[in-house]
Amino acid sequence: MTYPRYTRLVSSLPASVPFIGPETLERERGAPFAARLGANENGFGPSPRAIAAMAAEAGEVWKYGDSTSLELRQALAAHHGRPENTIVVGEGVDGLLGCLVRLIIETGDAVVTSAGAYPTFNFHVEGFGGVLHKLPYKGDHEDPQALIAKAREVGAKLIYIANPDNPMGTWNTGAAIEAMIAEIPEGCLLVLDEAYIEMAPEEAVPQVAVDDPRVIRMRTFSKHYGLAGARIGYAMGAAELIAQFEKIRNHFGVNRIAQAGALAALADTTWSAFMARLIAGARGRIAEIAAENGLEAVPSATNFVAVDCGRDGAYARAVLAELAKADVFVRMPGVAPLDRCIRISCGPDAELDLLAKALPEALERAAAAL
Amino acid sequence: MTYPRYTRLVSSLPASVPFIGPETLERERGAPFAARLGANENGFGPSPRAIAAMAAEAGEVWKYGDSTSLELRQALAAHHGRPENTIVVGEGVDGLLGCLVRLIIETGDAVVTSAGAYPTFNFHVEGFGGVLHKLPYKGDHEDPQALIAKAREVGAKLIYIANPDNPMGTWNTGAAIEAMIAEIPEGCLLVLDEAYIEMAPEEAVPQVAVDDPRVIRMRTFSKHYGLAGARIGYAMGAAELIAQFEKIRNHFGVNRIAQAGALAALADTTWSAFMARLIAGARGRIAEIAAENGLEAVPSATNFVAVDCGRDGAYARAVLAELAKADVFVRMPGVAPLDRCIRISCGPDAELDLLAKALPEALERAAAAL
Repeated sequence: MTYPRYTRLVSSLPASVPFIGPETLERERGAPFAARLGANENGFGPSPRAIAAMAAEAGEVWKYGDSTSLELRQALAAHHGRPENTIVVGEGVDGLLGCLVRLIIETGDAVVTSAGAYPTFNFHVEGFGGVLHKLPYKGDHEDPQALIAKAREVGAKLIYIANPDNPMGTWNTGAAIEAMIAEIPEGCLLVLDEAYIEMAPEEAVPQVAVDDPRVIRMRTFSKHYGLAGARIGYAMGAAELIAQFEKIRNHFGVNRIAQAGALAALADTTWSAFMARLIAGARGRIAEIAAENGLEAVPSATNFVAVDCGRDGAYARAVLAELAKADVFVRMPGVAPLDRCIRISCGPDAELDLLAKALPEALERAAAAL
Repeated sequence: MTYPRYTRLVSSLPASVPFIGPETLERERGAPFAARLGANENGFGPSPRAIAAMAAEAGEVWKYGDSTSLELRQALAAHHGRPENTIVVGEGVDGLLGCLVRLIIETGDAVVTSAGAYPTFNFHVEGFGGVLHKLPYKGDHEDPQALIAKAREVGAKLIYIANPDNPMGTWNTGAAIEAMIAEIPEGCLLVLDEAYIEMAPEEAVPQVAVDDPRVIRMRTFSKHYGLAGARIGYAMGAAELIAQFEKIRNHFGVNRIAQAGALAALADTTWSAFMARLIAGARGRIAEIAAENGLEAVPSATNFVAVDCGRDGAYARAVLAELAKADVFVRMPGVAPLDRCIRISCGPDAELDLLAKALPEALERAAAAL
């Protein structure tokens, strides 16, 4: 006897997981990491006011969160100068990407992205039966015009681009993104993942009309605002598109404590400015550590730095493994030639000190092992 | 020009929302509620140890939560005497129901539930294109054998039953649920929503083998444990079924603070026992308030009580509206004849005092208005 009957799509899906979490890796190796620099978390932590707001809200957590996240959307509306009904709050960008893909992609629909770009987006596309067309990076950058050309060729319903990019930390200019938007084929939506935009130079931010139906912008409190574990992000797009989320989203899915934390984090502009300096400082420090070891850091507009180990993916993977033995957790891009790099998240000095101490020996041992 | 192209299914969906949240209702009426007794939240709040654990974890929230929720699953495994790989933790029962429906239901698939049962389950079924077959309650109880017969008739892939039931608070015996399971047609899965089971008599709990492939049990920290706003629940079923969730779930979707809170709440067995007494006391108090007004309370195995207002749905709706005018928030069942009742959540004495004070006049005004 067979129970239950899964959908044909689910039966065809692999049991793949986009990311193995740091805790799982720690259990597998039997020891904690001393430097947690691999998941693009923000080790500087959130605003103390956000922490205080969350601690205070813990006593109120017997209540469901506001299903409309209205206070937060009002604050975001003021922050971005756009109406509340063009913003939807969700359980991080991952949750919002899942909803978006579900709105648009059914079995066989074409989607265009870059090979090596965000795996969780691909996970959702495949999970809804979409067909991924992956384009190579142009050097260390995603290639807007190539993505557009491919979308036109395959009749894509979605194009994904992250700006700034993960895993390389590079950026296209706002003007390049605007030029991309101007060329979007009819019936296609650009998913502009701006998870790292708060840490990017002003020139990376495109001007997009509030009611432009061709683009949805993904933002998060996980990176610059240091609230990764709170699971809260938002999407901005034309009101008609944002309204579609109401048909399918998990209406009470956003944690009440996260709403309070995000609201306080957004309001603490002093901390936000301080964080920008901390991140810029840590990026500089990682570049210095790279240089001390004869390596080059890829210029970054994010809270992580891709460091070019100067050889192939096998070598970078060996460096990664050696760093892990020294209790330093970092990650690396998944495809060649990006995988000549290791990707190091910004973090406090004490953790970067551990990196600085471990890297020379890790490079040496990796070279000896190959 | 048209952007984007939605799926055929999404284009066919209404913009319906299963529940309007209390905050939205407060904004619509322009005043806060003084007694929040309508959303089956637990106004007694979570364990103080859970609050302390969450407040402490707020400082760690820059880290993503453990994507496997392993510590919590280990604690739940010990608590239930079953292996960890038969438990999946998710963003509340709502989130888990969404995943489950997505695993099993595609356009046109049949699903059986009771008319007036949990709307969010129906929201997910319709959101994935399923066809709902709704059966009437048998008196104030869901009707296991009728659900089975209908599932056989229509070839259902899912049957939904809540035990104890929401919105009536009644329960079927564990033996009745076991008899139901014995009759499940091949290829059908029973969704046994046990959101309120911790507050039910022992006789309501069925014995189900850990590897029984015919049943998935939904549990939550939102009700008995008072963590509704934390969005954390779990499902228990055969390992093969639980493993399917990995293919589609939002792996990093469970809030880190919620994991810490749930772990502490589960461990605080003293508070849990105390809560059982608080809930039983509040149920008794609500029944007394009903009796003082010549009304009958439906016997409840949950943290709410359906009070039979003795007339039709229009009258109960008028009573509800009058209570709201007195700043008392309660809800009511959506279909006749259940909608002769109003549904009052358990809460602290101060809030039940407000109910006791407001109810006589609300009944009088409702009667006068009709």
